[in-house]
Amino acid sequence: MIERVCVIGAGSIGSLFAGHLAQVAKVSVLTRRAEHAEALNREGLHVTGRSDLHAAVTAAADPDELEPFDLGIIATKANGLEKAASSLEGRFPGAMLMTTLNGLGAEDVVRDHGDWPIISAVTFMTGTKHSDTEVEYVLDTATWMGPYQDTPLERVEEVGELMRRSGLKAEVFADLKPALWSKLIFNSTINAVAALTGLRHDHHFGDEDEPTDLGHLVHDLIEEGKGVARAAGIELYEDPWEMNVHATKRGSAHYPSMLEDVEARRPTEIDLITGSLVREAGKHGVPVPLHTAMYRLVKAKEASWREAESNRQAHQEA
Amino acid sequence: MIERVCVIGAGSIGSLFAGHLAQVAKVSVLTRRAEHAEALNREGLHVTGRSDLHAAVTAAADPDELEPFDLGIIATKANGLEKAASSLEGRFPGAMLMTTLNGLGAEDVVRDHGDWPIISAVTFMTGTKHSDTEVEYVLDTATWMGPYQDTPLERVEEVGELMRRSGLKAEVFADLKPALWSKLIFNSTINAVAALTGLRHDHHFGDEDEPTDLGHLVHDLIEEGKGVARAAGIELYEDPWEMNVHATKRGSAHYPSMLEDVEARRPTEIDLITGSLVREAGKHGVPVPLHTAMYRLVKAKEASWREAESNRQAHQEA
Repeated sequence: MIERVCVIGAGSIGSLFAGHLAQVAKVSVLTRRAEHAEALNREGLHVTGRSDLHAAVTAAADPDELEPFDLGIIATKANGLEKAASSLEGRFPGAMLMTTLNGLGAEDVVRDHGDWPIISAVTFMTGTKHSDTEVEYVLDTATWMGPYQDTPLERVEEVGELMRRSGLKAEVFADLKPALWSKLIFNSTINAVAALTGLRHDHHFGDEDEPTDLGHLVHDLIEEGKGVARAAGIELYEDPWEMNVHATKRGSAHYPSMLEDVEARRPTEIDLITGSLVREAGKHGVPVPLHTAMYRLVKAKEASWREAESNRQAHQEA
Repeated sequence: MIERVCVIGAGSIGSLFAGHLAQVAKVSVLTRRAEHAEALNREGLHVTGRSDLHAAVTAAADPDELEPFDLGIIATKANGLEKAASSLEGRFPGAMLMTTLNGLGAEDVVRDHGDWPIISAVTFMTGTKHSDTEVEYVLDTATWMGPYQDTPLERVEEVGELMRRSGLKAEVFADLKPALWSKLIFNSTINAVAALTGLRHDHHFGDEDEPTDLGHLVHDLIEEGKGVARAAGIELYEDPWEMNVHATKRGSAHYPSMLEDVEARRPTEIDLITGSLVREAGKHGVPVPLHTAMYRLVKAKEASWREAESNRQAHQEA
């Protein structure tokens, strides 16, 4: 029985998990900043948008202060994963952990820090954090999950059932890899293109009328990704091109997280997302010139912020 | 004898030509805006930076008001070329015209409007316009020129000599194509990469240490371009990769014009620059997947400004 859930990382996705699951379980939250934990302890968590909920949660920025839990959901960004996993090392022996990060390989990072049963997951829901204690539930799409290594499928089904009871959408797969790879190819393509062009995920991503239309590039990137999946022996769960076309027809254009990062001049998740795909391509000897180009362009865009900052400082000193 | 020069288009390059040539010839300027012409007539033109000059010029925004000239230098941006050339149609029968635009094919556009002798030129000098009447001469690199169709070489040499006497650097080629193509490949690569990454033309463009380093992409783009030149039967004047490495070692990083356009959210010259290369590649059946990707990304970036504007308007109306 899962009665106590700990959400590790309270960005928009972590907050959506916490706010919903608090309706059916006792929820604690591990935050990065102490003020964030204090605000959650004081005010609880509001979910607006597709849900309208208020959740009482206990929160801490120090893992020593966390109470034991049955299920830990790791919802940090890529660059917070190692620290989060190591902060759990040697603790919570009875717990099961679920990773919900983009890209591939988060489970391996967690396994390096302990022998908890692990669930692989990938989520398609999206949210916008309006404050430390309010998150808007924007797209109420599903979280997909499956066993990692020898985690029994029944335990994954138990988590899926809990999530559905909390008002979230969840699907359980005996083998998550086909779904993970569909999302990886989709994500690598859409995020990098959005980050470089400044476009939200809108109709341009599907346009293939004129030779210069963006849809051709999106299509080519997806085809490259599918070639890697084939070489890795993965049969995709969904065709990423169809996911793309379907998503851009949904009306309001989604703001890919990498575009948000670029606009805020934060480090992006390119190493985890496109990086995962490019590394897998290398393992299997499949050339991915377009994804490699996108990878280098996004890394160079990150470098441009450091250049602008050092130019600004040199200017101030002069 | 060239005694009267008209500069058509007074952006930074046009202003540099006008300010210098006014030291050795009578210079008139055709501007796009009437206020710009008025300011030039009233205050003349200051050149700062590498030169320190004041030039008296006559200026007009209406071609009817231009006095006859011996040499017309067309220094508009790509999107002003057609209008400039058609405004000259049926006029100035004794004049020679010189095109200094990026990309390929500006001469053909001018030819469509009259049978003046035409000089092909490409300039490497750079400047920054501080106002309608002040331009800073930043890089005092050469302008290269050569005959178009049956223009006699001696007439091109006469223009080269005039430019050198005015303090500008000029080189005359019996066949400009090898130099034009070197610059086209260089420009297509550097401008598009700068526009997408936000980097000025700095050391990142030459870095090839890590697999994700930008220099690899720059190198690959240049190799694609060289393949097109080979297929077109052009022996390049300079290796664009060496031009790239040399330029990034010059200390202060140049601001590529396409990056300026992107930062000001103006339409870029991508159709003329990368577009020229991609169209030539198509003619010769050479695949250029990376340049095609850059082309589509820059077009999509231009589209993102229109999306942002229409979102803003929809927001205001709501």
